[in-house]
Amino acid sequence: MNRIQLFNSIIQKRSFLCIGLDSEIERIPSFLKREKDPVYEFNKRIIKATHKYTVAYKPNVAFYESLGAEGWMTLESTVRYIKKRYPDIFVIADAKRGDIGNSSRLYAQALLKNMPFDAVTVAPYMGEDSVTPFLNYQDKWAVLLALTSNKGADDFQYHNDEGIKLFERVLSVSKKWGTTDNLMYVVGATRAEMLSEIRKIVPDHFLLIPGIGAQGGSLAEVAKYGLNDTCGLLVNSSRGIIFADNTEKFDKAAGEKAGELQMEMEGYLRERNLI
Amino acid sequence: MNRIQLFNSIIQKRSFLCIGLDSEIERIPSFLKREKDPVYEFNKRIIKATHKYTVAYKPNVAFYESLGAEGWMTLESTVRYIKKRYPDIFVIADAKRGDIGNSSRLYAQALLKNMPFDAVTVAPYMGEDSVTPFLNYQDKWAVLLALTSNKGADDFQYHNDEGIKLFERVLSVSKKWGTTDNLMYVVGATRAEMLSEIRKIVPDHFLLIPGIGAQGGSLAEVAKYGLNDTCGLLVNSSRGIIFADNTEKFDKAAGEKAGELQMEMEGYLRERNLI
Repeated sequence: MNRIQLFNSIIQKRSFLCIGLDSEIERIPSFLKREKDPVYEFNKRIIKATHKYTVAYKPNVAFYESLGAEGWMTLESTVRYIKKRYPDIFVIADAKRGDIGNSSRLYAQALLKNMPFDAVTVAPYMGEDSVTPFLNYQDKWAVLLALTSNKGADDFQYHNDEGIKLFERVLSVSKKWGTTDNLMYVVGATRAEMLSEIRKIVPDHFLLIPGIGAQGGSLAEVAKYGLNDTCGLLVNSSRGIIFADNTEKFDKAAGEKAGELQMEMEGYLRERNLI
Repeated sequence: MNRIQLFNSIIQKRSFLCIGLDSEIERIPSFLKREKDPVYEFNKRIIKATHKYTVAYKPNVAFYESLGAEGWMTLESTVRYIKKRYPDIFVIADAKRGDIGNSSRLYAQALLKNMPFDAVTVAPYMGEDSVTPFLNYQDKWAVLLALTSNKGADDFQYHNDEGIKLFERVLSVSKKWGTTDNLMYVVGATRAEMLSEIRKIVPDHFLLIPGIGAQGGSLAEVAKYGLNDTCGLLVNSSRGIIFADNTEKFDKAAGEKAGELQMEMEGYLRERNLI
């Protein structure tokens, strides 16, 4: 899926929402445990209830990997389900992979070739040859960690070399490895005030923004500092949507929460004259 | 497996060798393709032929993940095979994981609890809460990336904040998160001259050294600058051992290569009066 297709999907749905499928088996409604593959059943119902409001889904690979080979099959079933029914929805494997070139090549193959993910999140620590193998697939993307939303982001990401913080260097150096059509960046919503600085370095790239909702970030601030002429934002919410309710109506509740965020996003897109 | 047990194993085997099970299916001898699980069969034969000379194995998770759910089962079979037959051998999941706390907790569970790995390699970019979940298992380890052996290491790992390079900061900050009994560091052998600097920051920690052999690092240099009073080194070789030969005698060739490295290591351990 390329950038124009993604932007068209945003315009059509009036939404730049990404829903995180952090589908932890301990947290899904207990009546689903009777199903053969409870997490897949949970995901399908969440997807059916929310697909109108969202332009992207982001399964967090940790939650599937923790279930072993079966979890890996659930992950594959989930992405295949989404891409078959809703091919205009962008699907990100939130995997935080990154290794020497030959290994990254195989991680990219696992997620972008063997499975129909549109994108993979990638950690930048090991530099260029650990990232570029994810940029070799037509209309597929690497989403590189720049500034994350967790507390530990302070430990190294602000490491300051003559006025250039590490996350700024990650942006300015890595943007030369790809294009605005195969590279996005993770920027935590809990640091929305940093977005205007980040937009000076990467004005045209899409940014994936986690940290809305459970992690406390403000959507209004993110939209204010982050929107660009092709939207340029995918704002993620996970637990606030998928675990909005724990009863048989969990999917309806998820749809309502997603709908509320879509409505708010529609407002910001209008203010910016993008729709 | 704790540090004393690891050191005892090193003394007993007169070796600080780690063998990387980078068992790419395209590269294993073709006659093995007839087997039900060719990669598992390959690993078993390599392990049988080399276990006398090595104190650790390091499956590279990328190579298994690229085979989907089946690869995940092969990974699990391999680590279970090693820990059942050779419980004194240390097994590292080379996974380069690292995510916000809740996700890292599940990655740790996948590899240190659901599977009997002794250790997981972890990327430091996201800081403390992305690393500490790997330190919560008795006698298990996180192996944190500090200075890697690939070309891309130059992109960010030398980012210099008032004389402190990023990899030095990773060492000095992260060593407070754990102890010499649950935290090791990856230091690429291609930078052996940096080892004496690194030993000033982490004199007592074990270091996992990739990059011997195919990547060009020198074992003599690594031993000279890296050995400490409890050895403190695991030196990895992957392709140079496991792909030493491509015929029906591949396992014998692997054993010979591993034996050569063990002999060389025995010499360095003697010079240092550790055996």
